[in-house]
Amino acid sequence: MRKYDVIIIGAGPAGIITGTTAKKKNPDKSMLMIKEEENGLVPCGIPYIFHRLGDVDKNKMGPKPFVDAGGDVITDSVEKVNIEKKTVQTKSGKEFHYEKLVFATGSLPVIPTFIPGYDFENVFYIKKSYNYIKQLIVHLKDKKNIIIVGGGFIGAEVAEQLALEPNKEVSLVEMEEFCFIKAFSAELSEIATEKLRKTNVNVYTSTRVNSVNGKGRTVEKVELSNGKSLDADAVIMAIGYKPNTELAREAGLDLNRMSAIIVDNYERTSIKDVCAVGDCSQTVGFLTGTLDNIMLASTATAEARVLGHNLFGIKVKKCFTGTLAVFSTEINGLAMAAAGLNENNAKEANIEFISAKFTDVDRHPGTFEDTMPLTVKLYVSPSDGSILGGEVWGSKSSGEIINTISLAIQKGVTVYELISYQIGTHPLLTAAPTKTVLIKAAEMAIAEMNARK
Amino acid sequence: MRKYDVIIIGAGPAGIITGTTAKKKNPDKSMLMIKEEENGLVPCGIPYIFHRLGDVDKNKMGPKPFVDAGGDVITDSVEKVNIEKKTVQTKSGKEFHYEKLVFATGSLPVIPTFIPGYDFENVFYIKKSYNYIKQLIVHLKDKKNIIIVGGGFIGAEVAEQLALEPNKEVSLVEMEEFCFIKAFSAELSEIATEKLRKTNVNVYTSTRVNSVNGKGRTVEKVELSNGKSLDADAVIMAIGYKPNTELAREAGLDLNRMSAIIVDNYERTSIKDVCAVGDCSQTVGFLTGTLDNIMLASTATAEARVLGHNLFGIKVKKCFTGTLAVFSTEINGLAMAAAGLNENNAKEANIEFISAKFTDVDRHPGTFEDTMPLTVKLYVSPSDGSILGGEVWGSKSSGEIINTISLAIQKGVTVYELISYQIGTHPLLTAAPTKTVLIKAAEMAIAEMNARK
Repeated sequence: MRKYDVIIIGAGPAGIITGTTAKKKNPDKSMLMIKEEENGLVPCGIPYIFHRLGDVDKNKMGPKPFVDAGGDVITDSVEKVNIEKKTVQTKSGKEFHYEKLVFATGSLPVIPTFIPGYDFENVFYIKKSYNYIKQLIVHLKDKKNIIIVGGGFIGAEVAEQLALEPNKEVSLVEMEEFCFIKAFSAELSEIATEKLRKTNVNVYTSTRVNSVNGKGRTVEKVELSNGKSLDADAVIMAIGYKPNTELAREAGLDLNRMSAIIVDNYERTSIKDVCAVGDCSQTVGFLTGTLDNIMLASTATAEARVLGHNLFGIKVKKCFTGTLAVFSTEINGLAMAAAGLNENNAKEANIEFISAKFTDVDRHPGTFEDTMPLTVKLYVSPSDGSILGGEVWGSKSSGEIINTISLAIQKGVTVYELISYQIGTHPLLTAAPTKTVLIKAAEMAIAEMNARK
Repeated sequence: MRKYDVIIIGAGPAGIITGTTAKKKNPDKSMLMIKEEENGLVPCGIPYIFHRLGDVDKNKMGPKPFVDAGGDVITDSVEKVNIEKKTVQTKSGKEFHYEKLVFATGSLPVIPTFIPGYDFENVFYIKKSYNYIKQLIVHLKDKKNIIIVGGGFIGAEVAEQLALEPNKEVSLVEMEEFCFIKAFSAELSEIATEKLRKTNVNVYTSTRVNSVNGKGRTVEKVELSNGKSLDADAVIMAIGYKPNTELAREAGLDLNRMSAIIVDNYERTSIKDVCAVGDCSQTVGFLTGTLDNIMLASTATAEARVLGHNLFGIKVKKCFTGTLAVFSTEINGLAMAAAGLNENNAKEANIEFISAKFTDVDRHPGTFEDTMPLTVKLYVSPSDGSILGGEVWGSKSSGEIINTISLAIQKGVTVYELISYQIGTHPLLTAAPTKTVLIKAAEMAIAEMNARK
């Protein structure tokens, strides 16, 4: 039986970054990564396979950096982990001994067994699987009426992309009042939903799917809670993901009530020498420490960097504990991003806040032909002015500005500090120094705080 | 004689932001802004008047926000300030009494009196003056051979833009080995200089202008230190700016050896109730506190926000003292940005550092058609890993990423903290979470620091 110092189960972003970081830091340690399929996918790139990239092979991701660093990789499936013996057994009959084991098994689409017909033919999911998505593309090729269930990021992005394909009629069904409402404020969710409607997507909000019907077991209709019946040649269920932790559960690891593997700040499970990282592992909210279920590749890689550096002893202190969810997307040319608090999650967590926003343009002067609007909304603690959350929307700059706001939240920066925050500006790259949207939003927040005093 | 609570001399970014902020905070105080010309210009937009904007009127900026807040504005020129009587006298014969006076008089181009012929006809400057630039555009219209002296931001950007105009032969003469060397490292300066050469600009580096010659007093030739003689129909001198402080000097304010008005952290001069802000006021380096002469609209507006909030008593503590110069530009489609330390200024200030860089792409996967390379270079303190400086170049994202780095420098963020820094990523907006260029550069820096131990 081959022995490894480290075995990593899974080759998504969490597995690859953990392995690569750990191997680079510990070149003398032997490391094995076990992945289920020959090819891997960039998770957040999957929606763009359906149109803009046009080919699953343009969205591949693999453990090459890990291999380059000297790690071993096999394509196989782990069927059993023996915690006592410190071994893993694979589907092909191999057995390996580990010194340290890392679960990076990711997540699986939630199957809505409560919807009659959920298991009909031509009901699909957005699995993070190269083979599955490659097949799905083929399946959808001659399908006209496509119904997407769920208006989160994946559902909305897939809908937007499919609607750009010729001869497709795409509908999206979201039970909440707006799409994206789990990540964005009502204000931004409404903007995003309207933007999605202006593509060719028929968006049904505040609507549930009552049943999936058809002739035999093939989808033909989707019945909605609003009484409508939609013609359907294919249905894509995109109602969320759940941690892929059946293997961990069988091995005896502690799972939380969301089925995620319970870990500490350094991704260590309750069992010595066993870690879990990424979607399969527990997250707690950045501001509250409350149990959370954030599944983002960006979060997973932050955890993986921490784990990779610290697998053999804590060498790099984790400075930001808790998961600050930072979301970004682009729908129909409108970039949108959010970090931390907004009205919805603040209310849920009973966190007091004031909010303020400012809109200007992303270049200066605004007479440049490619100038686009840009809005920053800040959520601020009324006690000390610290930034608890932010939303940015408009031009592509939103994708990087949200990361400045993220750093501000993580470092406890206050709106008062942003008054003397020094930045760089340039006509072709940023807003004007006189109207830097982030700083102006901070000023609006200060004004709002003063008005309340 | 009309009395004002506040008089602001100057209506550039520093004057406008000081006035607008102060007036909004203190609506009951009477405020007057005195500006020299009817129209003002966005300072950093000036180079783009020469081609991309194509019209000086597309680059206007004025004190409308100040007026909207209830401030008075006149177009006139202050000829004398009487500190004892607290009055200002204008060219048109008006006299005003102030309670608080703000110098926001900006800067003027340096005139190279040491170059014979510097005062010939058709020798021009990039003055921050609407009337002057409007005239200059007319003057240059039928000029073919244009020589630009000085390869800093303004010189290089004007050269790049003029070279895009039809029937122009543009040459740029820079005495240092590379353009931009005062703001960028040798590595980035070289990249920028090569990019400028690939426009239609003939770039002469390590070269000085010996003299400007001509028939009578009209420019015909520029003689270079390398022995070359360039045909010249017009010369633009862009060798830097100096504080516009003659009025302040005559009024008796203390100036430093760079002729900037000496101020404290809150822009207060040594004379009670007299402040100075922006290019005309002193700056000290962020890391060293050494006397500096940074003149940037972004710096000026940060000072102006601080002054505007605190003109009648310090209400918002200045959290970042010292000036962190943050530069950005785009030459021929390549965005470039820098903040804080680099090899050049580190050597000058005798600051030890390690540097590390990482290059990837600005979108993910890299198969998107509009993907561009992106490089981050970090300069890090070997003692504690804190980030002292950074450079970013490649795609337009550079313009916002440098501001995340700026915040990191200002908050003393270490490369170790960046390991657990949580960010948002999206295929259409950012690099991949597995290869976020800023975080990867931090990892390279940690590896470099470990290697030295």
